[in-house]
Parts: sequence; C-alpha cells; structure tokens
Amino acid sequence: MKIYRYPERNAWPDLVKRPVMEQKEISGLIRKIFNTVEEQGDSALIEFNKKFDRAVTPQIAVTEQELENAADKISEDLKKAIKQAKENISKFHNAQIAETEKIETVKGVTCWRENRGIEKVGIYIPGGTAPLFSTVLMLAVPANLAGCQEIILCTPPDSSGNINPAILFTAKLCGITKVFKTGGAQAVAAMSVGTESIPKVYKIFGPGNQYVVAAKEYAQRYGVAIDMPAGPSEVLVIADSQAVPEFCAADLLSQAEHGSDSQVVFITTDFKIFSETIEAVEKQVKKLPRNELATQALDHSVFVLMNSLEEALEFSNLYAPEHLILALEDFEQYIPQISNAGSVFLGNYSCESAGDYASGTNHTLPTNAYARNYSGVSLDSFVKKITFQHLSKEGLKKIGKTIEVMAEAEGLIAHKNAVSIRLK
Amino acid sequence: MKIYRYPERNAWPDLVKRPVMEQKEISGLIRKIFNTVEEQGDSALIEFNKKFDRAVTPQIAVTEQELENAADKISEDLKKAIKQAKENISKFHNAQIAETEKIETVKGVTCWRENRGIEKVGIYIPGGTAPLFSTVLMLAVPANLAGCQEIILCTPPDSSGNINPAILFTAKLCGITKVFKTGGAQAVAAMSVGTESIPKVYKIFGPGNQYVVAAKEYAQRYGVAIDMPAGPSEVLVIADSQAVPEFCAADLLSQAEHGSDSQVVFITTDFKIFSETIEAVEKQVKKLPRNELATQALDHSVFVLMNSLEEALEFSNLYAPEHLILALEDFEQYIPQISNAGSVFLGNYSCESAGDYASGTNHTLPTNAYARNYSGVSLDSFVKKITFQHLSKEGLKKIGKTIEVMAEAEGLIAHKNAVSIRLK
Repeated sequence: MKIYRYPERNAWPDLVKRPVMEQKEISGLIRKIFNTVEEQGDSALIEFNKKFDRAVTPQIAVTEQELENAADKISEDLKKAIKQAKENISKFHNAQIAETEKIETVKGVTCWRENRGIEKVGIYIPGGTAPLFSTVLMLAVPANLAGCQEIILCTPPDSSGNINPAILFTAKLCGITKVFKTGGAQAVAAMSVGTESIPKVYKIFGPGNQYVVAAKEYAQRYGVAIDMPAGPSEVLVIADSQAVPEFCAADLLSQAEHGSDSQVVFITTDFKIFSETIEAVEKQVKKLPRNELATQALDHSVFVLMNSLEEALEFSNLYAPEHLILALEDFEQYIPQISNAGSVFLGNYSCESAGDYASGTNHTLPTNAYARNYSGVSLDSFVKKITFQHLSKEGLKKIGKTIEVMAEAEGLIAHKNAVSIRLK
Repeated sequence: MKIYRYPERNAWPDLVKRPVMEQKEISGLIRKIFNTVEEQGDSALIEFNKKFDRAVTPQIAVTEQELENAADKISEDLKKAIKQAKENISKFHNAQIAETEKIETVKGVTCWRENRGIEKVGIYIPGGTAPLFSTVLMLAVPANLAGCQEIILCTPPDSSGNINPAILFTAKLCGITKVFKTGGAQAVAAMSVGTESIPKVYKIFGPGNQYVVAAKEYAQRYGVAIDMPAGPSEVLVIADSQAVPEFCAADLLSQAEHGSDSQVVFITTDFKIFSETIEAVEKQVKKLPRNELATQALDHSVFVLMNSLEEALEFSNLYAPEHLILALEDFEQYIPQISNAGSVFLGNYSCESAGDYASGTNHTLPTNAYARNYSGVSLDSFVKKITFQHLSKEGLKKIGKTIEVMAEAEGLIAHKNAVSIRLK
C-alpha cells in the first residue's frame, strides 16, 4: 500500500499514474497469428487449441447438443441468478433505445437520426481462472436490443475441449446460437477475417489478456471496430466520516482480486475512517481464495487522506477511474462535480459488485484513464445512428443561397451547382 | 466510368470494392514527427511550418487581433451564410442532448446515465485547395453544445504565415479562441503530446490527408481518442423513373470534385434515367473548375442498371456509402431497408451539398464502408455517458443473492463478500 497524507496538489499527477505494466513486444506474433488464420482458417484454430489450450477440438463450432446440455450442468440457483441479472440489464439497456425525433431546422428542411443495429458483431469471452458468463450478459443483451442480426461468441475450450457450461447457458439464454471454441489472439483474428465456421464481423467486443487486447487493436487494420481500448480494472472510493470501513475494504478488495495489475485507490477526509479501512483491508484480504493476486494488487494501491471532499473529487477526475464509489452522506451534491468516471456507485449500499453483475448497468467500462474520452459499453455501442434529411423545393430555396455562398467560398463549384440547377 | 447492366449478385462484392489507394509506408515518418514535437515543442512546429508550408510563423498561436480582423476580410454574404448554417447545425445537434432518465430496475435499485462533455478536444482543419470553414462549424458547434471545456483548433498557415479568414471568422463565431498555425501530422502530434502553446487534448476530430490520417491513428498510442477512421469521400445515388438526370449528375459531381480518390456510384432501374444521367455527368463535368480532379474520380465511378429498387438498396447496404441519395418517388417506403449508410438524402430536392453545409446534419461521416460499424459525428462524439447507480439497503437485499451466486460461480469471492458484509 502506498499511503499519502494531505499530498500537495503538484504531487497529484504522480499519484494518479497507473502502475507501468511490463509490455512484451508481441506485434510480430499477432501479425503471424492473423496471417495463419487468414490462410488456414478452421484448421489453424484447431492447431492453436492444441498448442495453447492443450485441447482437442475436431470441430470449432459448439453443437446444438452442447448448448442444450449446458443447463443440466449448472445449479438452479445459478440459473435463477443469471435470469434475474438478465432481466435488470435488459430493463436498463432497453431504456437507452432512442426515439426518432424529427427536427425541422428551417421550414421545409427536416432532419432526423435513426438507429440501426450493427449487422454482425462478435463477443469474446476469456477463459482462464474465472468463467466470465456475466460478460456474456453485458454484451449479448444490448446486442439483441440493438437489433444486431448476427451475434457470435468465441471463447477458449478447457483441456477436455469443452466450454464452461455457465457461459453456454448464458449464451443460449441470450439467443446466441453461434458459439466457437477458440480463444486469444486467434479468436479475434478469426472474427476479423472469417473462417469456414466463423463469420467475419464488423465489431468485436469483450475483455482479454494482453494478446487479446493487442489482437483487437490489430483487427482495426481489417476495417473491424472494437468496443474500446483496454487496461487493468480499477476502483476509486471516496469516503466521509459516515462511511463503513468494512464496506469500503470489501469494495477495494473486490477490485484487487481481479488480478495483480488491478488498481485500487481510497480517499477519505476522515482520519478514523482512513486507518480503520486500511486495517479492514489487511484483515479481509487474508481470508480470500485469491489472496495472492489481491495482495499483489494492494502493493501498488493508493490510500490518500485529503482535506476536503471537493479536493477528493478533483483528484478523482484527474485519475478518471473505471469505477467510482461515493461512500458519502450527501452524495447527491457531489454528482455534478464528477467529470471523468466510467460508472459511479452512490452511498453505502451501492457496492461495485452490484454493477458488475445485476443492478442493470453495464460492467464493460473504460479503464486506464480512458474514462476521460470514452463511455462504457451501452446500447449505443451496438448501433449506428444514421442521419436522414428531406428538403422540399421550398426548403431548399430557404437555405439555397447559404449553400451556394459557402460552397463557392470553399472553392467547390459542383457543390454549388447541385443547388443552382435545382432552383433555376 | 465503369458501367454495369444487371450484374449478377455474385459479382456485387467486386463492384462495391473501393479503388485501392497507393499507400505510402509513412509510419516511420509519423513516429519521427511525434518524437520531434514531443522533444522540441513549439520550435519544432515553427520549423515544420517553414519546411512544409514555406511559412514564417514566429508565433504558433493566432493572436486575438488576427481573430478580430478576420471578419473584415470576408464578405457580408459569407458571414450571413455561415451564421445561418451555424443556426441550423445548432438546432439539429441541440436536439441530440439526451435527458437523464432514471430507471428503477428493481425496487430500491436506481440506475441512470449522465452526459459529460469530454474536457479537452482538438479540431484539425486542413489547408490546401479548399478552406474547410464548414468543418469548423460541424465540429465546434456540437463540441460547445456538449460542454467541452477546452476546444482548440489547428490548421496550417499559408505561405505568408496567415490562416484563411473564413476559418478564423467561423472559429471565433463558435467561441474558439485557441487557434494554432500548424498542420499535417505535426499538428496532430502537438495536440496529442502538448507543447508550450498547444494544450494536450483527449480527443482529436477532423479530416486530412494521408499524413493526418496516419497521425490520428498513431495518436491513439498516447491515450488520445479520435473521431473515426478515414477514407476518401463517396456518394451512392439510387434513382427511379421520376428522378431528374441533371440533378443526379450534379450530386455525383459534387462528390467527384472532392478529389481524384473520391468515389461515386449511381444505380437506377430506369434505362432512360441511366443513359441521360451519364450524358448529364459528361456534359456538366466539363464546366467545372475542378474538372481534372472530378474526371479522375469519374474514372473509377460505378454506374449500375438494376432490376428492382429492393436490389438497389441491398447493393447499397453492401457498399455502405458515406452519403446515400434516394432520388425516389416513394422514398419513405425504402427507409426501413437502409442498414448501412452515413447520411441519407431523400427525394429530388435533398442534394448532398445541403447536408454538407447548412441543413443541420453533420458532414463528418464514415467513409470506406465504415458506415457498417461507425456513426457519423454527432453530439455523442463529444460526450461520455457515465452510468450512475444507487442501491438502498432494501434494493441490495433484493438482488444480493443474485450477486453472491454469480460472483461465487465466477470464483470472485471478494465480489461476493462486498454484498454479504453489507447484508449480514
């Protein structure tokens, strides 16, 4: 833990810096994987499964039977939980569907926007230590609401060649029938270029390790869009004297357990809360199964004692956290001061894990200070907004001269002619 | 012109391919420019102005006096036109400000989104053959409406070290007071890394040549976001028997005059309209001042005769045009069939140049088939949508078990604890 008491303002820029990650130079490897997938298609993916996941997968596509059987392999409790989460996520994202509003900017000139779902989208779900079926919900639910016509999902198989049943159950629940056993950079490559089994998509969503992140970046050379740039997960908690140290500690740890590169920041104006939260963190971390990862993450965590909540909010805006928890009595009054954050949790009972799973908000959020310039995933991420305009002859007359004068001043005479020829 | 009569469907994928541009390998040069600007700041920009624009600019920042004087250097007609365009663009983009709607997904669990303007944005306006003051409107108007706090503008000086007065006038009209004399990749580098004069920004907007495009791509390594990937401009016109060949020709040419790499596509079901439009294009192009560029663009233009308007729409969706003109009697009925397009112009009087300048819609649109996965610039491009949630103790009780069960199934016990500790 790094502990700071009343740091000078000019020290802040150093404090908000993310720990520098060791970046392997992997662009050559990524290019090679893309080329291999482009040339050899499914058989390349089958080979990669052997090589990276020690899995024998004669067929890349998950069968209907496998999807069907998944429900029997998970508990009723889990099925019920996934369904409740889906319902809440659906409610929140459904409210994001914008109605078309026609604007008559000038009499006879009507402009509006209409949403169209991106036709083909790909969802990547990592394998590894945690089967992130919750991320399936966070991506498949808005994709469906947006009207995306083809939604595919890639995730790596385990060493027996199977996919985690909770991932399959959730995919099926969300109407995804095209699930493929492939992970890492090769999965991203397959969705970017297409193979015999896997269709090429227009946009790729989902988290992953540094190979997946690098592959998503590389995919853009193929005209594919991605959800957002990625980095390790992070939370910033601001607490006042009424906050509950045990709650704050639990929130900080639920971020720290994600991985050794996760970052947690705690700010308070209250000395008692400060020391008690640090104590509670040290106590709670010992009991965690992912204790080792969390402890590593805590090594570069930042605990700051500050003079005022206004200062704390300023610091937070400079840091631009993925998750911001305001464990404050008067959280309402501080909302307008928030300028950079991915998702904000208000009061003592809004724990981050609520938003991670089941409150309804999306958990795919900008990390690594990208909350300064990116929004989290929402329905908007799955649609294009197309502008439409209709001009009557009278409408064109009303703005015709404006167009002609501007086009001429820009030296674009054919632009001017398009008006003149209609009005003469 | 490439002329196709009733092409087979399996030939379409070739027809919708954009002409392949000669891509110089410039990534080394771009990296060098970024490094130079990072190391030498303003003095590098002053040197680049000498080297690339033959301009002596002892000071990079445009002075208040220069901004002030611009109004005297352009005609009253042009000032009036720019003001009318600004008004319409403001009206249309103002209607895009979303109201906050709070959603109670479960009793006691309230979620919503709030918009925050991206704090620092940079606008790039190219120099060269056409002074694109219209693009200043298209970017500065929504940036202001979004509440961006710092809006800066970079544009290259002419050989006397001056900026086109129409650009300065428009910038000032939009409240932009920080205008800088720098162009090309070095301008993008300056906005990405910051110099003595030019502040570092979080997102860069605006068109440019291949150096600017490559620099915007490169800027993302510095954590900067960009508006969208770029390519040459394009239009696709679909006409039926009631269309006016002279109008269609004028629209096609107003795209073709942008540059030799622009692409125009014309589709009709009517043989008479087909041949008359081709004739009209050949006649009108001769009279254009930018005749040479337009003629080069026409060389790789595509004229297609088709059996049905349904087919034409399908072809258009496959092409995914930046601009789509429906010169159709019953344009209304074809709107639902449009899935991929940047901006759509309906009927015989909605010429593309209306949207380029003054109807109110934005002219910064996805090209090069990016209309499949990107929207054009709108107010959304200048804001982040932050999600908020408030759970009461009762609210957390209602979804607590769901969170606990899901967190445990994902192996994230600290996530579960954050709920359990609050509910015990």
